[in-house]
Amino acid sequence: MSFASRHIGPAPAEQAKMLAECGYGSLDALVDAAVPAGIRQHGELRLPSAAAEHEATAELRALAARNRPMTQMIGLGYSDTHTPPVIRRNVLENPAWYTAYTPYQPEISQGRLEALLNFQTMVADLTGLTTANASLLDESTAVAEAVLLMRRASKSKAATVVLDRECLPQTIAVVRTRAEAVGIEVDVRDLAEGLPDDVFGVVVQYPGVSGVLRAPEFYRGVAEAAAAAGALTCYAADLLALTLVTSPGELGADVAAGTTQRFGVPLGYGGPHAGYLAVRSGLERSLPGRLVGVSVDADGAPAYRLALQTREQHIRREKATSNICTAQVLPAVLAAMYAVYHGPDGLRGIARRVHGHAVALAAGLRAGGVEVAHEHFFDTVLARVPGRAAEVVAAARERGVNLGLAGADTVRVACDEVTTADIVGTVLAAFGVEAGESPGGDALPEGLARTSGYLTHEVFSAYHSETAMLRYLRRLADADYALDRGMIPLGSCTMKLNATSEMEPISWPEFAGLHPFAPVEDAEGYSELVGQLCRWLAEVTGYDEVSLQPNAGSQGELAGLLAIRAYHRAGGQPERDVCLIPSSAHGTNAASAVLAGMRVVVVACTDDGDIDLADLRSKVDQHADRLAAIMVTYPSTHGVYEEGIAELARIVHDAGGQVYVDGANLNALLGVAKPGEFGGDVSHLNLHKTFCIPHGGGGPGVGPVAVRAHLAPYLPNHPLLPAAGPETGVGPISAAPYGSASILPISWAYVRMMGAAGLTEATRVAVLAANYVAARLAPHYPVLYTGQHGLVAHECILDLRGLTKQTGVTVDDVAKRLIDYGFHAPTMSFPVAGTLMVEPTESEDLAEIDRFCAAMIAIRREIDEIAVGRWPVERSPLRNAPHTAEMLTREWDLPYDRALAVYPGVSATGGRPRDKYWPPVRRIDGARGDRHLVCSCPPPGAFDQPTPTSGKDGAR
Amino acid sequence: MSFASRHIGPAPAEQAKMLAECGYGSLDALVDAAVPAGIRQHGELRLPSAAAEHEATAELRALAARNRPMTQMIGLGYSDTHTPPVIRRNVLENPAWYTAYTPYQPEISQGRLEALLNFQTMVADLTGLTTANASLLDESTAVAEAVLLMRRASKSKAATVVLDRECLPQTIAVVRTRAEAVGIEVDVRDLAEGLPDDVFGVVVQYPGVSGVLRAPEFYRGVAEAAAAAGALTCYAADLLALTLVTSPGELGADVAAGTTQRFGVPLGYGGPHAGYLAVRSGLERSLPGRLVGVSVDADGAPAYRLALQTREQHIRREKATSNICTAQVLPAVLAAMYAVYHGPDGLRGIARRVHGHAVALAAGLRAGGVEVAHEHFFDTVLARVPGRAAEVVAAARERGVNLGLAGADTVRVACDEVTTADIVGTVLAAFGVEAGESPGGDALPEGLARTSGYLTHEVFSAYHSETAMLRYLRRLADADYALDRGMIPLGSCTMKLNATSEMEPISWPEFAGLHPFAPVEDAEGYSELVGQLCRWLAEVTGYDEVSLQPNAGSQGELAGLLAIRAYHRAGGQPERDVCLIPSSAHGTNAASAVLAGMRVVVVACTDDGDIDLADLRSKVDQHADRLAAIMVTYPSTHGVYEEGIAELARIVHDAGGQVYVDGANLNALLGVAKPGEFGGDVSHLNLHKTFCIPHGGGGPGVGPVAVRAHLAPYLPNHPLLPAAGPETGVGPISAAPYGSASILPISWAYVRMMGAAGLTEATRVAVLAANYVAARLAPHYPVLYTGQHGLVAHECILDLRGLTKQTGVTVDDVAKRLIDYGFHAPTMSFPVAGTLMVEPTESEDLAEIDRFCAAMIAIRREIDEIAVGRWPVERSPLRNAPHTAEMLTREWDLPYDRALAVYPGVSATGGRPRDKYWPPVRRIDGARGDRHLVCSCPPPGAFDQPTPTSGKDGAR
Repeated sequence: MSFASRHIGPAPAEQAKMLAECGYGSLDALVDAAVPAGIRQHGELRLPSAAAEHEATAELRALAARNRPMTQMIGLGYSDTHTPPVIRRNVLENPAWYTAYTPYQPEISQGRLEALLNFQTMVADLTGLTTANASLLDESTAVAEAVLLMRRASKSKAATVVLDRECLPQTIAVVRTRAEAVGIEVDVRDLAEGLPDDVFGVVVQYPGVSGVLRAPEFYRGVAEAAAAAGALTCYAADLLALTLVTSPGELGADVAAGTTQRFGVPLGYGGPHAGYLAVRSGLERSLPGRLVGVSVDADGAPAYRLALQTREQHIRREKATSNICTAQVLPAVLAAMYAVYHGPDGLRGIARRVHGHAVALAAGLRAGGVEVAHEHFFDTVLARVPGRAAEVVAAARERGVNLGLAGADTVRVACDEVTTADIVGTVLAAFGVEAGESPGGDALPEGLARTSGYLTHEVFSAYHSETAMLRYLRRLADADYALDRGMIPLGSCTMKLNATSEMEPISWPEFAGLHPFAPVEDAEGYSELVGQLCRWLAEVTGYDEVSLQPNAGSQGELAGLLAIRAYHRAGGQPERDVCLIPSSAHGTNAASAVLAGMRVVVVACTDDGDIDLADLRSKVDQHADRLAAIMVTYPSTHGVYEEGIAELARIVHDAGGQVYVDGANLNALLGVAKPGEFGGDVSHLNLHKTFCIPHGGGGPGVGPVAVRAHLAPYLPNHPLLPAAGPETGVGPISAAPYGSASILPISWAYVRMMGAAGLTEATRVAVLAANYVAARLAPHYPVLYTGQHGLVAHECILDLRGLTKQTGVTVDDVAKRLIDYGFHAPTMSFPVAGTLMVEPTESEDLAEIDRFCAAMIAIRREIDEIAVGRWPVERSPLRNAPHTAEMLTREWDLPYDRALAVYPGVSATGGRPRDKYWPPVRRIDGARGDRHLVCSCPPPGAFDQPTPTSGKDGAR
Repeated sequence: MSFASRHIGPAPAEQAKMLAECGYGSLDALVDAAVPAGIRQHGELRLPSAAAEHEATAELRALAARNRPMTQMIGLGYSDTHTPPVIRRNVLENPAWYTAYTPYQPEISQGRLEALLNFQTMVADLTGLTTANASLLDESTAVAEAVLLMRRASKSKAATVVLDRECLPQTIAVVRTRAEAVGIEVDVRDLAEGLPDDVFGVVVQYPGVSGVLRAPEFYRGVAEAAAAAGALTCYAADLLALTLVTSPGELGADVAAGTTQRFGVPLGYGGPHAGYLAVRSGLERSLPGRLVGVSVDADGAPAYRLALQTREQHIRREKATSNICTAQVLPAVLAAMYAVYHGPDGLRGIARRVHGHAVALAAGLRAGGVEVAHEHFFDTVLARVPGRAAEVVAAARERGVNLGLAGADTVRVACDEVTTADIVGTVLAAFGVEAGESPGGDALPEGLARTSGYLTHEVFSAYHSETAMLRYLRRLADADYALDRGMIPLGSCTMKLNATSEMEPISWPEFAGLHPFAPVEDAEGYSELVGQLCRWLAEVTGYDEVSLQPNAGSQGELAGLLAIRAYHRAGGQPERDVCLIPSSAHGTNAASAVLAGMRVVVVACTDDGDIDLADLRSKVDQHADRLAAIMVTYPSTHGVYEEGIAELARIVHDAGGQVYVDGANLNALLGVAKPGEFGGDVSHLNLHKTFCIPHGGGGPGVGPVAVRAHLAPYLPNHPLLPAAGPETGVGPISAAPYGSASILPISWAYVRMMGAAGLTEATRVAVLAANYVAARLAPHYPVLYTGQHGLVAHECILDLRGLTKQTGVTVDDVAKRLIDYGFHAPTMSFPVAGTLMVEPTESEDLAEIDRFCAAMIAIRREIDEIAVGRWPVERSPLRNAPHTAEMLTREWDLPYDRALAVYPGVSATGGRPRDKYWPPVRRIDGARGDRHLVCSCPPPGAFDQPTPTSGKDGAR
């Protein structure tokens, strides 16, 4: 069988049944009816013909063989590390972890929420701050977010941030890209020279990029000077170093940011890795990104969930202070589990060993007459070899080692977990120096040794044997619901198959072992893969150029908007700063516009959900001279192919604006229509939606930006790899030149194995599946918006508002009740409050779709029971959902029986009780957790509960 | 941290606590007290110093790089195949599958039992017979078992079996090895010549090794002639061919045997693969090996379990007709899932494609003037190239293809799933022939095309999308309890950690892709690995030579006994055929002795469980001239280091006998004592116990045999690979020269990463853990046997007999109740009926061991409640165990509450209700299933149950 027939759930006979339900005789007829003729693409996609799974694997092996994973001692914020195999296999390679969605349904996400709480605790402990978030995209964007946070939180009205000259070069560049758009001045200086007067924040790299560690007085002095100026201080700190040196919190930091990559996460040619951001007490409510907190469930038992959601971009829209939508959950889980597995003593041991190699290296160099720049360092030694730096680096390369060329006269050598005494000897040989006896001792500044404890929670000491670790990982995975259990019919995200043959290559050492700043000749396989993927993505979207650098959809949006901004500026129209955004848009659109320095003007929608073209014309007229762009999602966030899209593009273009087509719904377009041909100037794509990169429980994402030729000069570039973008580019948007490079083979494999026909068929079946669900459920729940011929695109909105008004049953109740039926809920209350949006995708077969429809219909009957007064809503199975197994052991005084509580799906959908997924907790009280914010691991005693008995508290 | 510290569960501080409980101040003191001084080894093991995980991985990568996986067209019963990635990742690489034990506790093994039932259904369907077992070790041993079965079942008293000249050469050789020992004559002949008069069975290779397919009349004629002689007919049939040609059952077969390797299981240099054995109606109770059948649980719901256990060797001992103890569960699951994923149409499509390539190849050869030997074939073409065969094979090798050299004048070319038109062209080029247009059509004999259906059960059509398959695999895995959930404290098997770094290499193509009969120069990496592993195993056991060929412990036993037999014969004492076996021995010992042509004489044990040396002397005297050997397990199956072992060996040696030390309990010896030094002449080892090969849910095992130098000439060898054994060897004991070669890297990695100190420490901690459990549980359950100082070895026997007499609570009740507490039961009623044997192994940390002890103590309290009359035993939580979640939804009239039923562990052991493992079924009625034997998938409707409601049937 072809890969496409494995990827696409419904077999031809099933498709025929679904078409009959929709009233169409063929897929052609359905798609012709659903998609406006005016936007249809002509001809097939020009892609290589589909490869079988083993063929694609063989091609990827050939590409991988063209990468050369050397011993990497380049430093610059990326350190090689040993991923513990038990964690690699049971997290990174386990669909129970990688196919999970963002934990918006916390009751069925307790496993990964606990893992993220471990992450937050680890970061908070090591940085000596009180609260860390659940990860950011990479170190450089984390520092950029820290800069924005400091500006918001600072008492100073200044517009300047000071960056340590010792900051990572890519961090400086990313901060500059981001700062320019929002009017922040960046002052890069030697902190020893003191601070300027007017400053809202300072970023200290700790240790510095040159490896330097300074005296504690120096660091405290910087923080004190900043505080005196009303500014805040952020440490961009290396977590492994923090096991040995005084924490940022103890040195006066308000904020710490950085990466957790070296905690067991492969280099991966730059990503994905989990950045981190931590703050002192008082700033926690200003943290951008995801934050996991502890609350309680309906039984009062501890339960985890995302905290302070109301501060996020999707809620705050144009008032948002960050456009960050996601975290790097999978890499964050890897890093957290690395800390859990090693524990504080293990991490300290690794740090000591790394430091010891650096000390030995420095001693060897000095003994050999090579000047070492800094007396004090952790893992990185800067050697002065006047005029010889390139020669030394070349000599090391001949011996299989990549060193850092820090200038004509200096070489940077960064030790890490994989460094051995042999490697140190090899490096010395490259310097022309012989290895001698290591002097021992350390090279830490006096008084900087860490004295405070960390990772004292028992989770960091209970799982140090592989057996214990394996079981802990299994237990956490078993708490969660992911695609490996059943459908996740979200409308806001395309949760399709993440095929194993797409996933396997990311574990290969030839993809995992490359440093992002290794010489390009080490990465021929990557270069070829990136080039091919860019061409294919351009072909399927109808654009001319693609940048893979943005490592999340939000960053793709930002990159696209920055390109528009730069285009207008280059055209002499810097005043064009108005971004039109329809009221139906995802909140991130607005947040990204703000961060691109634009003003958001909302365009109304008509009653039938389409963009109101009359209002659009009026807004365009009103802002004509300042019109920068419009951002539209197509098909719309309402799940409809709007007929007016071409007209809309014309109106905006005529007024000199650019058209940004949000690619979130590209799964309804591939092979059918190309945004670059029906009016778009720029789109970002979500490789983690349409192109099969798994959601990883809430990241990593990849958000390439695709543009027409006139915007191509303004794509992201990178100071450390000119080949990664145009010379005239807007600067880097991510720390690494190709963002999350190591997961690009996933999307490459998807396109390679589907081919033009497969991709097109996937789109058509996705549209069929959504229309089938709409047809089956319409008699039970009104379908809110439809396009021509009453058809939806690849998703449909079920309107609960009437039922809510009539019965009090909310979308939350239905969502949680679906858990009892064995489903993840559809998207709740987006884009319309009080509705559920369902996207079945092409990967669900008819049996699973029918099971879902049967569950929804059965729930509708349950709602009817409330309507006729059989159950008060407060005591109904909907409001009490989800029901845990433990509830069954207690006295039962509810007006429905236990079997209906926990096995409603058996009669409705034909499953077997034995196959049930049991939610680990009851409904979680989110608000309580926000009032009493706890964002690190609760004490072990918190889970001690009285022995469950058939006690008196009843099941409520 | 060192690998040893990851492998060994208890950290030093925990060990100190455990030692204190045992009353010893150090591990040294404990081990000195437990192990008789007379057998202690002197000095450390001479092994390479321990490698870290990443170092061992790097070394294995270097070894792998020295293997050359060519395009394999050698045939001989091994065909390359594409393992579907979703199956590789989610079965072969998933600890939920590979760390499971044999499904002796069927209530917590329903997932793999269903998978095996799929396997049995697949084999029965394709062979056209009624009942297939749950797999055998490989094709050749399956045929050997078929021969033994035919002898038992035949009406003829003849001693001769006829083997088709077209049988695989290794099959002929294995049958000869096995037949010689039990007095069967093997007549290899061209079946066209008719059958001899006196014959009990005939084996037909279908298609033949030369590729030939004959007319249906031919096959029917053979079966009819056999039947007329009172003989039975076995087809050694290729399952993929059977999708296109008439099934053996329709051609008169009584039995079919073969391999399922080409159904998605990697070549792996010969194994492990699942052999199969199927029989017509009436012979099912004669089937050797494991057989899964359908029965019902206490609710009457369908439930799977092993059927007809009473016919197995461990029950029948010296009356056994086979010594097969295990199946190849993991490869069988892979093969079954391959069939589930492809379905009947998919398999037929693969077969047609393979056949089409063979047809094209034959046509191309003929067009190029090369004679093709057979007009009719399935996948294998025999080409006649007088005098040029070696040259053609060499030419193909230059092009990356291994062909079969079938003689000086003939070349065998076997097509398979990975064959492409390009490969066919390459092969033709090697023959010096140009590829032309393929003629199409087929090359099947007239009238042989298959017309009967197969794989019609819905399981073979429901999971054809990857998403559906993924979920099916997860659902099955979730039904089972394996080491990734918790302790499996068996006494009969050592269930220790199967580390990920040990497991990862078996997936690498360089280990997975080698044909067992590829030229040795393709397998340099394997050769080196095999050589090193043999040396290490010899060192740790104190023997001189090791053969890795036996692919199960039982086969190791047989190989060891055959070596003894050959040694006596070579010494002119063929009359030595008495094998002494203590009454405490595992039943397989006796069964293996019988199959090695020996007579079993039982030696009594004393009341304290040791071998009765007085009885031994008497039996030795009685059989002195005919004494061949004694088989003893050390430490004894009673879990005790018997002091008399050296004396025992002396007595037997003095009488001219050989001492066979069963290595099942080697986990109590490594680094402490060497069987080869304290009296053993030969041992088999269980790499799947002591050396970390996972149990795979009931196979594969690896059972190397280790001997002192005088027995070395009689180790197994192999006709197709002289390097694999001594010229004077007893012949092959497995189909492949190195048995299950592809899993040997697991044990290699274990020894490499543990080193001498690690292996020794593992033994010491295993002994500590057993003594700790004995010390903690002795106040609650008598510990049956102990050695010097009241200590046990690495396991302990808990005597339930008194409690059973007093209360009626059986070992079964305790075993099933442990499921409610979240544990797999210890070994039940072996070696002593009415007892439980517990082996915690070194890999369980103190927390898990304590959790187990707490559960056992809580169960003892429950037994006390029965004793005092609070609960009648029939209505007690013990007798009703295990309790399912579904029970909780029904009316409850039991004398204990629901929480006690399902969460007894929460108060006893401190777990959380949310972490509970739920058994999918209640206690299974095994006897009912044996009376009504059903060994293929039950109809889907069987699982339809009335919607569970709080009905009237109550929880009983």
